[in-house]
Amino acid sequence: MQFVIVSVVAGNPKPRSRTLDAATRVATAVTGTAPDHTIDVIDLGAALLGWGDPDVAAAVRSVAESDLVVFASPTFKATYTGVLKLFLDQFETGEGLRDVVAVPLMLGAGPAHALAPTTLLSPVLSELGATTPAPGLYLLDSTYETDGRAEEYAERWGRALVRAASR
Amino acid sequence: MQFVIVSVVAGNPKPRSRTLDAATRVATAVTGTAPDHTIDVIDLGAALLGWGDPDVAAAVRSVAESDLVVFASPTFKATYTGVLKLFLDQFETGEGLRDVVAVPLMLGAGPAHALAPTTLLSPVLSELGATTPAPGLYLLDSTYETDGRAEEYAERWGRALVRAASR
Amino acid sequence: MQFVIVSVVAGNPKPRSRTLDAATRVATAVTGTAPDHTIDVIDLGAALLGWGDPDVAAAVRSVAESDLVVFASPTFKATYTGVLKLFLDQFETGEGLRDVVAVPLMLGAGPAHALAPTTLLSPVLSELGATTPAPGLYLLDSTYETDGRAEEYAERWGRALVRAASR
Amino acid sequence: MQFVIVSVVAGNPKPRSRTLDAATRVATAVTGTAPDHTIDVIDLGAALLGWGDPDVAAAVRSVAESDLVVFASPTFKATYTGVLKLFLDQFETGEGLRDVVAVPLMLGAGPAHALAPTTLLSPVLSELGATTPAPGLYLLDSTYETDGRAEEYAERWGRALVRAASR
Repeated sequence: MQFVIVSVVAGNPKPRSRTLDAATRVATAVTGTAPDHTIDVIDLGAALLGWGDPDVAAAVRSVAESDLVVFASPTFKATYTGVLKLFLDQFETGEGLRDVVAVPLMLGAGPAHALAPTTLLSPVLSELGATTPAPGLYLLDSTYETDGRAEEYAERWGRALVRAASR
Repeated sequence: MQFVIVSVVAGNPKPRSRTLDAATRVATAVTGTAPDHTIDVIDLGAALLGWGDPDVAAAVRSVAESDLVVFASPTFKATYTGVLKLFLDQFETGEGLRDVVAVPLMLGAGPAHALAPTTLLSPVLSELGATTPAPGLYLLDSTYETDGRAEEYAERWGRALVRAASR
Repeated sequence: MQFVIVSVVAGNPKPRSRTLDAATRVATAVTGTAPDHTIDVIDLGAALLGWGDPDVAAAVRSVAESDLVVFASPTFKATYTGVLKLFLDQFETGEGLRDVVAVPLMLGAGPAHALAPTTLLSPVLSELGATTPAPGLYLLDSTYETDGRAEEYAERWGRALVRAASR
Repeated sequence: MQFVIVSVVAGNPKPRSRTLDAATRVATAVTGTAPDHTIDVIDLGAALLGWGDPDVAAAVRSVAESDLVVFASPTFKATYTGVLKLFLDQFETGEGLRDVVAVPLMLGAGPAHALAPTTLLSPVLSELGATTPAPGLYLLDSTYETDGRAEEYAERWGRALVRAASR
């Protein structure tokens, strides 16, 4: 288990966001160690709007070569952000996340969008070829640090996720 | 692996349907052996409309105690059938499919609904607590016996599914 | 406006449910008059599991001939019920709700499934040919009688709904 | 009817795309006249990644002040693009498209994603407050110019759309 490579991807237009922090906490809670790679998508800037940028390609590669990745987004318009989708659009359909175990994570201000990680974000990750054993996780951005939900999720799903990610 | 208990659930209003046949083929292709239990939901009849029927309870239990289950439906109105959902409504939210690896399968007349198993059926199985490592599978009801798609799916996802289902 | 024919359809396995009551309130709030037809789906019983029953056909016809219909369901497993879907499966794809303005309504115990009427129920009604100008409405089954949400929805969307329904 | 203000929004990372062309054709087929405003989202460039840019604000305003808008995207990863979502993220939740009749349009290489405009794009437009009487339209990017589907859609839904858009 200690050889699983873990990454987090945060798709918030604000750098160093609570989204990124929550993703890091979830990755740590699920795997027991801090993530190896962190992609704060907004750092890639305008290169996300086109194809072929080397920094974007390097970020895509580090995600594709991970064993387990937390993909995190705030909730904008009842679903994941355009910023996160821009990054996901850079992966190859059906192949880009092959052999990657993906954890869909969304944060929001209230409970109304709790379904979105499972019904909206998870299918996109599936389309990229990811393995998605667990449902998505939805956290409240005002309480995620202390409400214990990330830990409950890790307790419920951590074993299945790490097992799927172990080669 | 030979100890994985495998079931198929088919939610077609017609008994002995192509849905059931396709589900059995997929279960066999994925696991290498014929399913241990077969639930043709329509056989449960009017008891599905209420709660507490012993035959329904026995069917629910045999599914809940399986390690890997193919949940299959024809495509009605761009999604799974009312008959299948009636049966799924009998399971306990978050717990009814705990420790069950679920494979969402839908059949249809044309390709337009290929997304439905992943975006519509899979989230319901997640809500029941199932582990869903692989995307859903969509088969054409006119060609599934010979088009090789069930075998491709088994080739692509069988190892991850059986691994997740093995205790 | 007084010539708009209004119906409510409630898909709760319990007859005379809060689902039916809420649907009636929403229809009344939106149109200003009590519904002309009420279909409590569970009353149709085991005939829903097959095709060609005359009572089911009469219920389908009365809905199809309405101008505005509230389709209501409790939230089971994060989506509409099998009972409601059984009834919807009786309509012809693309045509069964032609010229019907549909209002998707779901009730639940908590706020987590607030998206479901718009993302899950509304597309099924669209697939049947319905006109769906407004988003779905989600009500809490413990407070819908007094929390004013049905009235807010009627205030926000009533004019567009009635206008679309007027011939 | 001649006073309806019509816009098209195309969210393709390539400027002057087939997406934009198809959106213009659909708007014209539905309303009988060429669109008044055209937003090729990619023209807004890196300003889409932040908030408060005056060109983005002007584009948002011209859409918000329209009566009928075709929102168009190619299919990337089984859903709309990150580029389109970036632009939609600039609108105010529940209000940004108030009194706008929205037509969700997606183009793809094959028929497998035909559901996406109705199940994925339409709910985002609803969340922004748009009126969405008609289902989404999915066109094949290789045949949309001649296959007659845009015209069929206009025939089936044009009257309801224009009526909803007329003040």
